[in-house]
Amino acid sequence: MKTIYLAGPEVFLPDPAAIGDAKKALCEKYGFIGIFPLDKDIKPQATPRQTAMAISLGNEALIMRSDIIIANLMPFRGPSADAGTIYELGMGRGLGKLLAGYSNSDVPYFDRVCSLLEAGGLASTSSEGVRDRDGNSIENFGLMDNLMLEGGIQEAGGVFITHHVEGPERFTDLTAFEEVLKVLQRKLTS
Amino acid sequence: MKTIYLAGPEVFLPDPAAIGDAKKALCEKYGFIGIFPLDKDIKPQATPRQTAMAISLGNEALIMRSDIIIANLMPFRGPSADAGTIYELGMGRGLGKLLAGYSNSDVPYFDRVCSLLEAGGLASTSSEGVRDRDGNSIENFGLMDNLMLEGGIQEAGGVFITHHVEGPERFTDLTAFEEVLKVLQRKLTS
Repeated sequence: MKTIYLAGPEVFLPDPAAIGDAKKALCEKYGFIGIFPLDKDIKPQATPRQTAMAISLGNEALIMRSDIIIANLMPFRGPSADAGTIYELGMGRGLGKLLAGYSNSDVPYFDRVCSLLEAGGLASTSSEGVRDRDGNSIENFGLMDNLMLEGGIQEAGGVFITHHVEGPERFTDLTAFEEVLKVLQRKLTS
Repeated sequence: MKTIYLAGPEVFLPDPAAIGDAKKALCEKYGFIGIFPLDKDIKPQATPRQTAMAISLGNEALIMRSDIIIANLMPFRGPSADAGTIYELGMGRGLGKLLAGYSNSDVPYFDRVCSLLEAGGLASTSSEGVRDRDGNSIENFGLMDNLMLEGGIQEAGGVFITHHVEGPERFTDLTAFEEVLKVLQRKLTS
């Protein structure tokens, strides 16, 4: 059976074990072994930095022994996906893994940044077009995030699926995740 | 001479060629060949998505033929670094490249998220400690971003340097970038 590293911001949720177990159960349903980032035993080290480095090394080891990365690329504390998840997706690409991704938002990156702009949060318009308040251009290809993310997934032969969920359930809804598993199952058995 | 892929949000600046040339000139000063993401010729494709995919593939090719990745990990439109830059750092790690990073902010990730919290922007406190307004925990290891970023750089034998710059110059100041080049030069000639 193929193993899937479950990259995503779920490790920060109030009950990470519950969502991890739910994702692993779905993996099993479709014939995969899911590996959640917390599936390792990291002892606190002498300093917070050393503990962080041990966690990083542990996650990298889990990624290396996985066949597939499924990344939850929902926007997390800003217009883009969680930084750690993006790093892990990129690492999987460098390692030649099969990549897949999903997001519980179907709002394109450009629109998301512009919404923040209108709210006065992060950006502002200018006569030269839509740039953020620092004068930086806003990527506008209709994609859900920076083009490297969907680009890498496509190049790796994978799939990216969105399913829009509003409210607190957007952190835990697994509809899009399950769709990804269905596609991967078909892809790998055909 | 070793080649360095110059990952960073500079491609979004008002004058990306100018900052790209400045970074490449510094690379040359320290005995390296700098490769800027715009050092490729991408023709517009039939659709914006296809153009984005062509850019992604072009960047991945530049990363593959580089020996070193230096990532500008300054906070970009949120508390974390630019999504594309993080992806490229992770890809470099998966490919076994030497990694380095820098940021023109020395404010730890935890403090940055808490500042947004206090401003009512993205988060809120609770009686259980500091979680964001969605109840998600905020990583607190004293690092500048998600632990996977500095973790990967350390594991790859690299260096991460911060040099705090306020105001618009934080996008263009190359003090920390030059420090990284000095360290890499020493590391590779010793």
